[in-house]
Amino acid sequence: MPRLVMKFGGTSVATIDRIRNVARHVLRERKAGFDIAVVVSAMSGKTNELVGWCKEASPLYDPSEYDAVVASGEQVTAGLLALVLRDMGLPARSWQGWQVPIHTSDAHAAARIVSIDGKNLIEGFEARQEIAVITGFQGIHEPTQRITTLGRGGSDTSAVAVAAAIGAERCDIYTDVDGVYTTDPRVVPKAKRLDKIAFEEMLEMASLGAKVLQVRSVELAMLHKVKTFVRSSFDDPETPRPGTLICDEEDIVEQQVVTGIAFSRDEAQITLRRVSDHPGVAAAIFMPLAEANINVDMIIQVASADHATDITFTVPGTEFERAQQILYKAQSQIGFSNLQGTTDMVKVSAIGVGMRSHAGVAARAFKALSDKGINIRAITTSEIKFSILIEAAYTELAVRTLHTLYGLDQP
Amino acid sequence: MPRLVMKFGGTSVATIDRIRNVARHVLRERKAGFDIAVVVSAMSGKTNELVGWCKEASPLYDPSEYDAVVASGEQVTAGLLALVLRDMGLPARSWQGWQVPIHTSDAHAAARIVSIDGKNLIEGFEARQEIAVITGFQGIHEPTQRITTLGRGGSDTSAVAVAAAIGAERCDIYTDVDGVYTTDPRVVPKAKRLDKIAFEEMLEMASLGAKVLQVRSVELAMLHKVKTFVRSSFDDPETPRPGTLICDEEDIVEQQVVTGIAFSRDEAQITLRRVSDHPGVAAAIFMPLAEANINVDMIIQVASADHATDITFTVPGTEFERAQQILYKAQSQIGFSNLQGTTDMVKVSAIGVGMRSHAGVAARAFKALSDKGINIRAITTSEIKFSILIEAAYTELAVRTLHTLYGLDQP
Repeated sequence: MPRLVMKFGGTSVATIDRIRNVARHVLRERKAGFDIAVVVSAMSGKTNELVGWCKEASPLYDPSEYDAVVASGEQVTAGLLALVLRDMGLPARSWQGWQVPIHTSDAHAAARIVSIDGKNLIEGFEARQEIAVITGFQGIHEPTQRITTLGRGGSDTSAVAVAAAIGAERCDIYTDVDGVYTTDPRVVPKAKRLDKIAFEEMLEMASLGAKVLQVRSVELAMLHKVKTFVRSSFDDPETPRPGTLICDEEDIVEQQVVTGIAFSRDEAQITLRRVSDHPGVAAAIFMPLAEANINVDMIIQVASADHATDITFTVPGTEFERAQQILYKAQSQIGFSNLQGTTDMVKVSAIGVGMRSHAGVAARAFKALSDKGINIRAITTSEIKFSILIEAAYTELAVRTLHTLYGLDQP
Repeated sequence: MPRLVMKFGGTSVATIDRIRNVARHVLRERKAGFDIAVVVSAMSGKTNELVGWCKEASPLYDPSEYDAVVASGEQVTAGLLALVLRDMGLPARSWQGWQVPIHTSDAHAAARIVSIDGKNLIEGFEARQEIAVITGFQGIHEPTQRITTLGRGGSDTSAVAVAAAIGAERCDIYTDVDGVYTTDPRVVPKAKRLDKIAFEEMLEMASLGAKVLQVRSVELAMLHKVKTFVRSSFDDPETPRPGTLICDEEDIVEQQVVTGIAFSRDEAQITLRRVSDHPGVAAAIFMPLAEANINVDMIIQVASADHATDITFTVPGTEFERAQQILYKAQSQIGFSNLQGTTDMVKVSAIGVGMRSHAGVAARAFKALSDKGINIRAITTSEIKFSILIEAAYTELAVRTLHTLYGLDQP
């Protein structure tokens, strides 16, 4: 039988009633003739509760014990869904990460999947027609035999990796929205659900602020060519909508120049004034930040006279204080005269593989935003996207302006 | 270094503050020079929550999935205690049943420990001076690689079994009481804490209604000669009281005739009238009940004339309805004329190894109870205990009467 992976997030399994609803989705696909692996998250709220206890127990908590605690959430959901499926007369069993096994690196709390042995799951399909219910978000580090977790949103990655391991025909990611939109419908009511989006575009969308899928899961889907659908778990299980297919660029017939507008709130901008312009100065600035795991984005360097330069870059708003402390500590090595920081910035991005073959896509945006009186503080571009940094107050106006500009409002 | 097992139940780990208190008990013993394995239960209330979800998911739940769900409770506590210990600067790591490994039978939800491999724990002691924090109540069935649980109260058994496996000098069971009492202090305010109690006596006490320890844990302690203390987790960790030592009979110098009075509420009595008195009739009655896992106790047979007999026995009150249904279904095979049942009975027992060498111990009780107007409905005796069945309304009166009669009130 062809194989299918179905992934359900925390809100989709938040109560036993919702877990029953999940089981009905599984039943439908079973009747359609699939062998099924279901990947589940913890009941919504549970992971936060467990993380809260860990922090209360130890503010600088040991990540391997954190993983042992936090991984229990998915264990509960997997067992409960297996119980519900069995109660409906479907053979099913739960699998924890270490039972599958899902091998990961030892980077506790942020582990990467190294390999998945699909043998046990496939044996369950073939020998017992058994639905496999797998704990998302976690695995085992083989040498230490300790439980690891993949970091927030890791269940998407688990699902795609399982799909690759068992050679699934597709991987359906069920969420609380019915697909991937041209932009956030809460900001642009005219936002439209996309029928298809290219892997590369989805990767940029996820990286640039669209929260629908974890970035790593899209990377894996792209790498292993896993046909992945994003769809709603709240649809009637009898008559579900198809959702959005994430697929190869070639499989999309009518390609737009711009496919979607993403935005990432709560960015902070830091400018170092009169940095002495000598080799190694960039390393002196960015190495200490990298070592502290602070993600630096959108770097701009403006040369000025007399061998000094201004360097501007963005960091996540949550890391703003920490980044400043680190830079002041390194002030003598870097040699800047003063530091200026601004929070409440937002990064707005337009994404589309069509940009590769169309010139001037970004330039049109700069003009349109300027016409609305929006001041652009920084710009970065790549082959298939451009991003601008603006004041947060202009977020909605900028997103709507670009959404209209690139023809995404049209039905 | 000598080794010590410390076990903490659900109320002792119910909050992070209480877990910190547990850690202080561990620190004290560490300073006293022990290598330590701590066995923990789930935070109090958690197991009930998980069991509730299982029943909601599937009224006739599959026990292997039930185990996968319910075992998560101890996993959380073990990780949290390891975090707290590490936060205090003590090397510690959590061990789940399958990681130790604790091998069990495959009787899910009521598994028996088959063997424990102490090698990993001992390596942690010797190579890394590491405190082992172990999930109680659970293990792994090796051939299926599935998680099993030992049934309610199973953490006591885990603790004693770990103590045997690592050759611990003693096993301290921390509870919400400060030891084993001559009887329940809520019923008899004059009840006294025992300094020592023999394994055999503790086994009877636990079997006959005293809830301080799980029966199986006492069996294991007796079998492996594990010196086991029952003591309070709510004592000041700096100045704890010693609690009650469960030990060999020979280690108790001043042996009383009766050591304690136990009672078990909510018993039900069933009488089958005019059972035809032929070989195989007892099997016809008790086999179907055994097959339905109904525990039959206190059997009395009263022969009457004309080859018929009355048979009376007790079952737990919770099984009363089910037992009646089974007996009516088998009425034609058994051949009884009618069935009479009474609930709200209580079994009161007096226990003491001294009974072996003293005659007439039980007879004194019958007289004392009769003097108080208490009607005895059934009696069973063994070498070191006797039990009487009475109406529940007389529980307190009977327990206090026996407590005084056998000199247990005296300081």
